Amino acid sequence: MEQMLRMPRRDAVASMEALAVDHSNGRSAGHRDDAALYRRIYDRIRDLILGGRLGPGTRLPASRALAAELECSRTSVLAAFAQLQSEGYIEGRAGSGTFVSGVLPEQLLSVRPEPAQRADRKRRTPEVPRRHLSQRGEVLARYARGPRTPATAFIPGVPELRAFPFDVWARLLGRTWRRPAGGLARHGDGAGQRPLREAIADYLRVVRAVRCDWRQVLITTGAQQAVDLAAHLLLDPGDAAWIEEPGYPGLRGPLIAAGVELVPVPVDGAGISVTAGRRLAPHARLAVVTPSHQYPLGIVMSLARRLELLDWAHAEKAWIVEDDFDSEYRYSGRPLAALQGLDAAAPDGGRVLYVGSFSKVLFPSLRIGYVVLPPALVEPVLRARAGLDDHPSAVAQPALAAFMGEGHFAAHIRRMRTLYAGRQAMLVTAAERYLSGLLEVPADEAGLHLVARLTPALAARLDDRQAAARAQAAGLVTPALSSYFLHAPTAQGLLLGYAAANDGEINRAVKTLAAVLSRTG
Amino acid sequence: MEQMLRMPRRDAVASMEALAVDHSNGRSAGHRDDAALYRRIYDRIRDLILGGRLGPGTRLPASRALAAELECSRTSVLAAFAQLQSEGYIEGRAGSGTFVSGVLPEQLLSVRPEPAQRADRKRRTPEVPRRHLSQRGEVLARYARGPRTPATAFIPGVPELRAFPFDVWARLLGRTWRRPAGGLARHGDGAGQRPLREAIADYLRVVRAVRCDWRQVLITTGAQQAVDLAAHLLLDPGDAAWIEEPGYPGLRGPLIAAGVELVPVPVDGAGISVTAGRRLAPHARLAVVTPSHQYPLGIVMSLARRLELLDWAHAEKAWIVEDDFDSEYRYSGRPLAALQGLDAAAPDGGRVLYVGSFSKVLFPSLRIGYVVLPPALVEPVLRARAGLDDHPSAVAQPALAAFMGEGHFAAHIRRMRTLYAGRQAMLVTAAERYLSGLLEVPADEAGLHLVARLTPALAARLDDRQAAARAQAAGLVTPALSSYFLHAPTAQGLLLGYAAANDGEINRAVKTLAAVLSRTG
Repeated sequence: MEQMLRMPRRDAVASMEALAVDHSNGRSAGHRDDAALYRRIYDRIRDLILGGRLGPGTRLPASRALAAELECSRTSVLAAFAQLQSEGYIEGRAGSGTFVSGVLPEQLLSVRPEPAQRADRKRRTPEVPRRHLSQRGEVLARYARGPRTPATAFIPGVPELRAFPFDVWARLLGRTWRRPAGGLARHGDGAGQRPLREAIADYLRVVRAVRCDWRQVLITTGAQQAVDLAAHLLLDPGDAAWIEEPGYPGLRGPLIAAGVELVPVPVDGAGISVTAGRRLAPHARLAVVTPSHQYPLGIVMSLARRLELLDWAHAEKAWIVEDDFDSEYRYSGRPLAALQGLDAAAPDGGRVLYVGSFSKVLFPSLRIGYVVLPPALVEPVLRARAGLDDHPSAVAQPALAAFMGEGHFAAHIRRMRTLYAGRQAMLVTAAERYLSGLLEVPADEAGLHLVARLTPALAARLDDRQAAARAQAAGLVTPALSSYFLHAPTAQGLLLGYAAANDGEINRAVKTLAAVLSRTG
Repeated sequence: MEQMLRMPRRDAVASMEALAVDHSNGRSAGHRDDAALYRRIYDRIRDLILGGRLGPGTRLPASRALAAELECSRTSVLAAFAQLQSEGYIEGRAGSGTFVSGVLPEQLLSVRPEPAQRADRKRRTPEVPRRHLSQRGEVLARYARGPRTPATAFIPGVPELRAFPFDVWARLLGRTWRRPAGGLARHGDGAGQRPLREAIADYLRVVRAVRCDWRQVLITTGAQQAVDLAAHLLLDPGDAAWIEEPGYPGLRGPLIAAGVELVPVPVDGAGISVTAGRRLAPHARLAVVTPSHQYPLGIVMSLARRLELLDWAHAEKAWIVEDDFDSEYRYSGRPLAALQGLDAAAPDGGRVLYVGSFSKVLFPSLRIGYVVLPPALVEPVLRARAGLDDHPSAVAQPALAAFMGEGHFAAHIRRMRTLYAGRQAMLVTAAERYLSGLLEVPADEAGLHLVARLTPALAARLDDRQAAARAQAAGLVTPALSSYFLHAPTAQGLLLGYAAANDGEINRAVKTLAAVLSRTG
């Protein structure tokens, strides 16, 4: 099907001809055909890399030029590049273009193993020849698992667990299960238990100005399951979704599994750029955003931008997932109400799915989250959920409902807000003292982490991934800002989580970080 | 794109020409093209039904004849029919063919609403115009949710909850959370907690002859999540999977969400017919089977059939999901070891994913299951899980591990086995007394339900769906056997669950059933 053209090995710049793909089936315009073409471009480039015809370091043509040559949309080319990059085949270098990865991960090289390489079949833990995974499986299986390190400074997004009232929690668990009420042990409601849904709806109405009835609240295992359900129910394979660039990698997996084309849309000072989104993928079916406190940059989406985003969604009949991941922790300034509240009065019931979780308020291993659905989506999502994951576990729901209903939840948030505000101040102070000349660590009105920027002096010696690797070697978790980009990063920095470490731990960790970053060579 | 041919409304038999689909793009052979063609056949027939050109009751051509006419594989036609049937557009009638559904569900008729029908947009709970869901979303949103009725006779698959030691359970929950050990509250291992995985591996090795190390055990929210992960990781959209016909509908959802083509393969007296599977879809990538106790028929897959299935999987490098859903409850006869144990010594580590859950041993709302993976799949599945649903909730895992480790689990199973054996005997006796002439209710060596067959005398008056509807109206849940078929049912019967009802309840329910089925007219 594809035209195979010879080309010299290790050609420094890939020729347009070599990248030619057959799109005789895909020319009749329309979105689906773009999606098919994107896959052909992806397949073609991957084959050339795996076959050794595009060597490490080879520069790829600019997406615009390649799109013109292939007579296809630039979106298709960008999508193929994004996929190849997320799988490690190619890498973007800020300002200088896109290149075949310098060091291909070993597993990439074994995608199509030579017969000779497959001799040792009796090893104790045999490797699956990778072609036994599906194509999307190969992408999913490259998903980088989050850090599973012991509690340590600067791990972002993890709350202080030493301050959680586990005695109360244990008592509530025991109390709700000793003589389980009604049908607690039986197959539950696919949406979750009513008392918990009511408690969540009450909380969100008051604190986040979410407009909802408890019937719109669906209990999930977390934000990922909410996105998984939405992506499968609302999008077909090849449909495009806007994601924030940089953004939270944890929500990309469900979109990839659903066959959705990820379209990273740059974030500016007012939030996701709707203008850029319209240019990159005007007919996207979904936008996943963090308006209250952009992850990881901490930007609050302006009201004008919110209205612009809603306008787009209504005009395109697209959906918006509002991930309000750490709205509980705002230390100063007046929070903007949830995007959902701006939109829920629309005649069609609104286009925003509001997503939250208890991971950062109670504890991460609880694995209870929720999504507030537009009324018209409640029944379809419930049915889809029944087909995919029956109903949420009932074990923790009544205890959590009691934890909220009896005031422990609000009290815990109040205590943690004070605690974390103090820790952020400690981090800023310590950074001014020990990290000046290396990192700039501006304060933030909200959240559980700060984004430290590399000073020009440090940036001349290290990029942020190298800085993160040095910190990691010294026992510190400080993810590189560039690792939150799907395409070529346009900013560098380090994420410094401060919630899980006390003042002394923060102080020591800042000194350690200063020491490893000061080291030259 | 499609040739639109006129045809008279309510034509009693659909003409071949009317069903003509354009497959100029899909003729170049190969599996993917079959998948595309299947979708075109599906789209075409659906359009004709929704447009009113194929009226209710219209008979469709035989699949073999239509395949010949369209010059495509019969598999494509059968797959399109299966999809249409699962969505309620068409229905199979045993022995007489396939027909446009007599009564189209109301929501089907509103798939493409006329403009006039869309005036009332300000209703309090607006309906989503269905085209706002994705194509797969429309299929998922038609998923029939299971019964959420109060505990009652004959609901299948639900254990006796009045006998569960909730005092022990509550104590273990409280004990494990009062001072949570180690990192219990932090982000957990994506595979689940080691003590629970060890307890499961020990149990399965001894009781089911599963060959595994605890590292191969992945904790899930249930069998659905195991199939969801496997389908996304191992299959691409359009890939085929064998499912048992009749079979458990609960595992179809994850396959549909993953874009997998469902291929129902008939079950005979020795289990799933590998011969039929090879004929229908020789290159399927997956087979989902219940070898220990076929659901719902109760057949034990013969050893010869097991070896034949494994041969096929190894030759095709396909995967097998072994759903061992009620293996704990065997009352007589010697159980065959798990299929997994037959295969795990294969040089490649085996091709069986062994799936189980605690829903039927502890209680359904626990929502903890597991999958035992071939060693080579452990790391890819863990990574895929991290991308899709981070890690399983830690709340119940330590209590469950203690429940198993301290002997409560084995003791509870022993007690329940005695209890359920007695209830099955009660059901058989009561059926002989009250249901003779209406239903034949043979005993079974295992499980939590019996399959009652309609006597010829009853079958002359009612089909099994009508019988089930009568029972339902009298407060009894007795699912029709025909509802477990994806294609035209080849058997009729009623499922009678006996685990959740005590002897008195069973006796009363049998009398009620006899009364409603005896009624003529």
